Amino acid sequence: MTFDTQLDAALQRLHDEGRYRTFIDIERTRGQYPHAEWTHPDGSRKPVTVWCGNDYLGMGQNEEVLTAMHEALDATGAGSGGTRNISGTTVYHKRLEAELADLHGKEAALLFTSAYIANDATLSTLPKLFPGLVILSDALNHASMIEGIRRNGGDKRIFKHNDLDDLRAQLTALPANTPKLIAFESIYSMDGDFAPIEAICDIADEFGALTYIDEVHAVGMYGPRGGGVAERDGLMGRIDIINGTLAKAYGVMGGYIATSAKMADAVRSYAPGFIFTTSLPPAVAAGAAKSVEVLKRRQDLRDAHQTQAAILKTRFKALGLPVIDHGSHIVPLIVGDPVHTKVLSDHLLQDHGIYVQPINFPTVPRGTERLRFTPSPVHGRSEIDALVGALDSLWSHCALNRADLTG
Amino acid sequence: MTFDTQLDAALQRLHDEGRYRTFIDIERTRGQYPHAEWTHPDGSRKPVTVWCGNDYLGMGQNEEVLTAMHEALDATGAGSGGTRNISGTTVYHKRLEAELADLHGKEAALLFTSAYIANDATLSTLPKLFPGLVILSDALNHASMIEGIRRNGGDKRIFKHNDLDDLRAQLTALPANTPKLIAFESIYSMDGDFAPIEAICDIADEFGALTYIDEVHAVGMYGPRGGGVAERDGLMGRIDIINGTLAKAYGVMGGYIATSAKMADAVRSYAPGFIFTTSLPPAVAAGAAKSVEVLKRRQDLRDAHQTQAAILKTRFKALGLPVIDHGSHIVPLIVGDPVHTKVLSDHLLQDHGIYVQPINFPTVPRGTERLRFTPSPVHGRSEIDALVGALDSLWSHCALNRADLTG
Ligand SMILES: Cc1ncc(COP(=O)(O)O)c(C=O)c1O
Ligand SMILES: Cc1ncc(COP(=O)(O)O)c(C=O)c1O
Repeated sequence: MTFDTQLDAALQRLHDEGRYRTFIDIERTRGQYPHAEWTHPDGSRKPVTVWCGNDYLGMGQNEEVLTAMHEALDATGAGSGGTRNISGTTVYHKRLEAELADLHGKEAALLFTSAYIANDATLSTLPKLFPGLVILSDALNHASMIEGIRRNGGDKRIFKHNDLDDLRAQLTALPANTPKLIAFESIYSMDGDFAPIEAICDIADEFGALTYIDEVHAVGMYGPRGGGVAERDGLMGRIDIINGTLAKAYGVMGGYIATSAKMADAVRSYAPGFIFTTSLPPAVAAGAAKSVEVLKRRQDLRDAHQTQAAILKTRFKALGLPVIDHGSHIVPLIVGDPVHTKVLSDHLLQDHGIYVQPINFPTVPRGTERLRFTPSPVHGRSEIDALVGALDSLWSHCALNRADLTG
Repeated sequence: MTFDTQLDAALQRLHDEGRYRTFIDIERTRGQYPHAEWTHPDGSRKPVTVWCGNDYLGMGQNEEVLTAMHEALDATGAGSGGTRNISGTTVYHKRLEAELADLHGKEAALLFTSAYIANDATLSTLPKLFPGLVILSDALNHASMIEGIRRNGGDKRIFKHNDLDDLRAQLTALPANTPKLIAFESIYSMDGDFAPIEAICDIADEFGALTYIDEVHAVGMYGPRGGGVAERDGLMGRIDIINGTLAKAYGVMGGYIATSAKMADAVRSYAPGFIFTTSLPPAVAAGAAKSVEVLKRRQDLRDAHQTQAAILKTRFKALGLPVIDHGSHIVPLIVGDPVHTKVLSDHLLQDHGIYVQPINFPTVPRGTERLRFTPSPVHGRSEIDALVGALDSLWSHCALNRADLTG
């Protein structure tokens, strides 16, 4: 086989399984979000409503955030020009780290170029710092955590999703003096369910394990200052390492961990994914810092967000749609087949100007393919009416003529 | 041992070896680069000249680049709000990818959040696409390539740095039908030496191996349109995958590969580091695209860059300083000991307002610790005079009183 035929085969597999991904080209207009312009592959443009973005609170168009970015661009220029160690540390980076440490009530925060790399770099470095470390990892942890845990071939145990008995059983099976870390998420982004954080912390205490939480889909959105679910539940102090992103609710880009000063210092010093890459542009750091600061006091946005999510779920349920509801802001409709999901998504986009990307393997397990809606404070009454109306007609149409969907 | 004492031990090792890193807090003033403000840990601020940045051509303060970023912020907002697949693909991303494919004369380019993750994600994904792939990796390849090659425990052979005989010997030892890839850099960033690209391509042809080149320290700076050393030498067509950054000569942030349409499509579809992370902010993509476009026609900047590097090396040599000169723009002075290097760097910063970060292990091998200078078109006569004067006096001082340096 030549390289070329192998590439063909790899791509054909995706087509055969109906999970070849087509990126939809979306251009938002500032201040108009969730409305945006879709550029069709033929070059024509059409207005759409974005229903699958992760700019959960619309902060990507917040005026204070944009002003902070403009000002930093004017003051200091485009890129940082270096890795954090070699000329790429600025007051903007330090200010953002201070803002994040404060957000989580931790001694320190460490900034990465994304939460992906924050997870990957931190989780792959911890076994270097704690030789023999065994990481207990929730079965539904995000790809970035999995990649980090796997990377150096470190020892790991996968526990059943949110299953405290399984977690306890696996911990009990390990020698008492083995260093252990429990890695999990606060909100699982594809189902929208919460982890039993307090119970996990109790178990961690019992077994002397460190705790690592990914709050990527919660920071900015939960807790009185946006510190996440652990803040809401008064548990931040019991988590050793909190991971978050600046690219979703905070609307900009970047990722971080918040932790003890010593832990941050050690990860900073030993993690290749932190050391060997150019730091975030100062303007990005400035925008993110402003967003974190703003959301510390914008409980109104958090409330509106939850209200919109509750309304959407209620209306989906009223139509008998297969919505998953765990009480979070994430609204998945399970379709269960990649081809059907794609057909639904295509119809919504082309016929209704509603953009919701089909979610398929490997992002979710096969057989649980879905449409995942992300309501926000800027998705108002008329956007919800349009969505619900479109889904209603599409669902009826599918029930009447389901063969269409297998096409 | 508790977690805490292990962290103490890990940090103490760095202090003991003299390679605990202190980040220097630098704020550039737009338009003034390489002049910047250093914020001392005590809060006081002092003007310094940055001599170790990777904004090699000063594009981080280029007005066209900054305007493109301001405009994108105004038009579309702060972040992209999603992964590339889920609402995070915009015309800005596509335009940048088109610009990069054109730069390298390839069918396609694929954008990542950094060149670190472009290397890591691509090199760890290729063995999935080509089962049994053996990667032949230059011994001095960058950490991000090493991390990618190692990640999934794929098969690899390390060949001696730039050693064609060793490369050939290792290829000969492999079965003819084993898929192979040769991974190397065009300019090694810490020594500034060039790879024998043409000879490596010849060997690759002979053994039917794919070629992967990291041009991170060359794009923008070499070749008539900034396509890198492979462009300069007319070899881009012989390289299967070209990796580059948007964070150094292009002055912004981001990384990419340029390659065939099929290869890009397969990496796009299979690499977790591409799939599972928020895409670059549109403003960052807009600034980077503008910078690539501008540098396609700014041979004058490339010429000025080489001139300044040649002047600096000549003047260092005239003083008898231990400069390494491989004819590139990178100017390393080998000190050979982490403590001495740090003392020199501290003196330069505190007494002379010259900022050059000490480079130590793991960035360079132990025993080759160095000061690495990065002249640019904006480092003019007076900056060079000041640097040469400071080093001259410091070197004499050290020779007279070398004991000081061991302090
Ligand atoms: C050779 C080489 N490759 C890749 C990278 C990573 O580039 P980026 O800063 O875009 O992550 C660097 C430095 O940062 C480098 O020196
Ligand atoms: C649970 C989770 N963790 C981490 C990430 C990575 O965050 P970022 O986009 O900042 O890389 C994501 C999504 O992108 C995620 O869903």
